[in-house]
Amino acid sequence: VNFLSLEARIREIAEKVNREIDDVLPSPEGVKEDKLFEAMRYSALSGGKRLRPFLTIETSNLFGVSLECSLQTALAIELIHTYSLVHDDLPSMDNDDYRRGKPSCHKMYGEAAAILAGDGLLTYAFSLLANNTTHSDAGVRIELIQAVASASGPRGMVGGQMIDLESQHECMAFPEIVRLQRMKTGALFALSCEAGAILGKAPKTLRNMLRAYANNIGVAFQITDDLLDVEGTREETGKSVSKDANAGKATLVSCIGVDKAREHAKLLAEQAVDYLNGFDERADHLRAFAEYVVRRSK
Amino acid sequence: VNFLSLEARIREIAEKVNREIDDVLPSPEGVKEDKLFEAMRYSALSGGKRLRPFLTIETSNLFGVSLECSLQTALAIELIHTYSLVHDDLPSMDNDDYRRGKPSCHKMYGEAAAILAGDGLLTYAFSLLANNTTHSDAGVRIELIQAVASASGPRGMVGGQMIDLESQHECMAFPEIVRLQRMKTGALFALSCEAGAILGKAPKTLRNMLRAYANNIGVAFQITDDLLDVEGTREETGKSVSKDANAGKATLVSCIGVDKAREHAKLLAEQAVDYLNGFDERADHLRAFAEYVVRRSK
Repeated sequence: VNFLSLEARIREIAEKVNREIDDVLPSPEGVKEDKLFEAMRYSALSGGKRLRPFLTIETSNLFGVSLECSLQTALAIELIHTYSLVHDDLPSMDNDDYRRGKPSCHKMYGEAAAILAGDGLLTYAFSLLANNTTHSDAGVRIELIQAVASASGPRGMVGGQMIDLESQHECMAFPEIVRLQRMKTGALFALSCEAGAILGKAPKTLRNMLRAYANNIGVAFQITDDLLDVEGTREETGKSVSKDANAGKATLVSCIGVDKAREHAKLLAEQAVDYLNGFDERADHLRAFAEYVVRRSK
Repeated sequence: VNFLSLEARIREIAEKVNREIDDVLPSPEGVKEDKLFEAMRYSALSGGKRLRPFLTIETSNLFGVSLECSLQTALAIELIHTYSLVHDDLPSMDNDDYRRGKPSCHKMYGEAAAILAGDGLLTYAFSLLANNTTHSDAGVRIELIQAVASASGPRGMVGGQMIDLESQHECMAFPEIVRLQRMKTGALFALSCEAGAILGKAPKTLRNMLRAYANNIGVAFQITDDLLDVEGTREETGKSVSKDANAGKATLVSCIGVDKAREHAKLLAEQAVDYLNGFDERADHLRAFAEYVVRRSK
């Protein structure tokens, strides 16, 4: 799988995800709470590469899980990712006015609606996961819900965001930053890969391999993000540039320098591919994705 | 069951709930995200009458569901109620500095930690519900999760809060206010009662009776809240008084006047008791509770 066909595959999945989100989220219907529905839709449909859905759908593929089945889980995970961005952008958090090149949710709808839109997206994601269209086996759905709640909860994503806020203007050591990143973005990344194994009732060993793949990819992804933050322009990344550096945030890149960081990310991506050795050619998109993560320009 | 023994029962359940929350929520453990755990614990353990757990445990009782089984579900619902209070109190929402006579979460820990604490409590509630200690049958847990997500999501509690914010300084008609209340507080109230029926695998007819009971109780509860807001003092209610009136909010009481409102609440409570006709003496606490809801002074 070359770079171009991987990008085509990512776009194909993103389009499916966009259509589905458009379909499942409540539309304005002339009621007083319409602003909430609009804010939820605005955030969930404002682009985004849909990399987590890509991971869930591709890992599901490894176990012969159909797209119909994996898509709904992928959707739920993407809604949780979206909620986290909406809340992270709030003035009392990272105070970001732009997201994916557009005004962030609170800039469009105000803080209150943005907080509620995040709450609504998070809650709605669990509705989706619990629905029997996600998987016919209630036990599988329960396992998904446990994994999603754990990855996005106080010991995962939400805890990571707390650490991030507590660490502004602080010089963190490399292992500390890795821990922060593992919780803040890595946990949901790993979950996106594990979800395929859960849906496919895969043996524990293969599930662990996918988790290891995802953990490496997650750190590599974050390093590339940091590199783009240092080197990119707003046009390319769609968000304010050098925000982290300006906020005095320690990043993996500020810790070890640009060159070493780039090297480290490349190494992580190579190791990630090794974790896929037990899989056949159906894992080729995932293999290519490891390279994509460190080569992407936005 | 007289008023005193009902109050004793409510206190007994509240103490159990407090002990369990203390037990299940993560404690500060010398990590950077400790502030998040502290904010979650502060909000979840700052008193409160634990009326929703009371309803879940008492309705579970009707179907012979053990306390061990119903307690965890009751806990999850109370954590969702807590998260909604934490977010509602935020400056961009209702801007409340006090909650249950103490500084609200964002006054203690700052806005960012309060937003994250709410997110963490909501997510953790779904973790609890998905856990097999909630019920041995995964299908029952899925049904609970669906009901909880639906009651607290965009078409329930979160939607109700959006309507509430959109309706400030607006003269709403009585049916509109009832709809607002049904979504904002009624849905979780009704869910607290339905949860007992779900745990007890009760027939649909009995589940509907409990839902009807809860809907009446919910509106009666809200009217009493409004009456206390007009007439109470901060010492009694533990929160700022006449806030709603000062904010120019239309309430059920401002709509129909104090006397009619009191009468209406009494009628709703009587009707609520009628819905329990199909149940034996195990429903006596719930019958007494209907009266309590309109007679309480805080």
